[in-house]
Amino acid sequence: MAGIENFKEQYGPWALVVGASQGLGAAFAENCARRGLNVAICARRLEKLNSVADGLRQRYGVETRQFVTDITREDCTEIIRAATEGLEIGFFIYNAAVEPGGPFVRIKEEDLVANIQGNCTTPTRLTHWLAREMAKRHRGGIYLVSSMAGLGGIANWVAYGAGKGYELLLAEGLWYELKPYGVTAAAYVVGATETPKFQETQEKYGTGLTGETKEEDLKVGTVVPRTPASVAERLFTQLADGPRLYSHPDDKASAEGMAQMTRNDYVNTISAMTTAYFLGGTNELLDPIE
Amino acid sequence: MAGIENFKEQYGPWALVVGASQGLGAAFAENCARRGLNVAICARRLEKLNSVADGLRQRYGVETRQFVTDITREDCTEIIRAATEGLEIGFFIYNAAVEPGGPFVRIKEEDLVANIQGNCTTPTRLTHWLAREMAKRHRGGIYLVSSMAGLGGIANWVAYGAGKGYELLLAEGLWYELKPYGVTAAAYVVGATETPKFQETQEKYGTGLTGETKEEDLKVGTVVPRTPASVAERLFTQLADGPRLYSHPDDKASAEGMAQMTRNDYVNTISAMTTAYFLGGTNELLDPIE
Repeated sequence: MAGIENFKEQYGPWALVVGASQGLGAAFAENCARRGLNVAICARRLEKLNSVADGLRQRYGVETRQFVTDITREDCTEIIRAATEGLEIGFFIYNAAVEPGGPFVRIKEEDLVANIQGNCTTPTRLTHWLAREMAKRHRGGIYLVSSMAGLGGIANWVAYGAGKGYELLLAEGLWYELKPYGVTAAAYVVGATETPKFQETQEKYGTGLTGETKEEDLKVGTVVPRTPASVAERLFTQLADGPRLYSHPDDKASAEGMAQMTRNDYVNTISAMTTAYFLGGTNELLDPIE
Repeated sequence: MAGIENFKEQYGPWALVVGASQGLGAAFAENCARRGLNVAICARRLEKLNSVADGLRQRYGVETRQFVTDITREDCTEIIRAATEGLEIGFFIYNAAVEPGGPFVRIKEEDLVANIQGNCTTPTRLTHWLAREMAKRHRGGIYLVSSMAGLGGIANWVAYGAGKGYELLLAEGLWYELKPYGVTAAAYVVGATETPKFQETQEKYGTGLTGETKEEDLKVGTVVPRTPASVAERLFTQLADGPRLYSHPDDKASAEGMAQMTRNDYVNTISAMTTAYFLGGTNELLDPIE
């Protein structure tokens, strides 16, 4: 699995990375191209996709195909299938996500529905299509990017966390089911990563660091950001290692530590952190609802 | 919380139980009526709903309203809102579920989409509506029925388990967020229950008991069925106890034990059980895919 030659045999000739215009998705695409796969990438902004694709062709001499789509559209799967027609996709990374934040009762219903479309329906339909194709060929790999927020109930990311929990379990189950077909699959549990999106959120809400020391912050998991390059690279070192892979050993240690907690302690601990992060010192939770 | 007088103040005057024509849902409705709430119930079959409602009115002298809906319909939330117009709903139990079983690559795409509609979208939209109404009144309770299958990746229930994982995290997060509003919420993790649906599945697939002893079966969780009456009753003894409630102490012990496993061991253990249950001795996993 580690050598490039084996990688191409198992996962070639084309990779599909959904959500690849920048940050972590672009870094996943980079890792695929570096290992010799042609790369199909999509996201909402064509200009950024073109720039990513240009770089991959120049640096690695691979083929690319880039096209626009939005994971919250009901026809996103149809758009992706049409845009990749004729390509044999052996490697699939679903990196795109919808991330509604703040108190659940204050989120618009349409954003909750978009969260489900983007974090549940689209990855399920794409995975179903590609898992069947890969199973017929007895090779391939499917990786759904989940989050530390998908490991348990989490205030201010209630719906987002639920969507990430859905993806987590979908990929974990497929790890077992697809093994007999020679297809690898896993959930990739990613902690905070220094992506442009993460930086925007930090500017909006603050750093979210609440402990006095790095060790205290680590206890509650996700707030020490890694670089996209290191997070992407790390997936490729553990592709067949298990149903749930982590972006950093600290994240794994944190998740395993928190899994020992009572559920009350787990939800209280992680939710106190996100409440400080999203709501700061305010009492927005108790403001009247219109 | 235990006394009937307090129960009605916190949760009255109306309960809404979605999925209440038989089995566990009917038992939830019985518990609400016994504690003095009027009960709105819905499911797919009006005749069965009428029979449940007749019994509740006769035994407890409460009002009932029953109406037909299907949780896999996109307009299910609109149907329920219209049918309960004018009722002040202070207690909400989402018990209905869609349960596609068997290998993921062999399930029809439309059934995967129905799984998301019924296990994610409909409960999210109903919860959003009712959580806002209850938060404005500073009282009420929201309980989403999840499953042992929602605690981790599970072969042959990959999509169903993912949907139940979504509901689990949604309710866990709301437990924290709704507390300041005086609204209780929790996920109710239900193990195997002797409902008509469960019995149908058992007839189709066998009992799923794989251990040599009850203790061995208990280790992997969910296959020792309880009665619907005991499972329903137990929710009402722990309504405000935490974000994740269990239908039986054995289920809690089993879940907590499994949470200590490595993810590889967890998914392998529970999936070996469901593979025996759904596929028996066959090698259906390796049959060609059309």
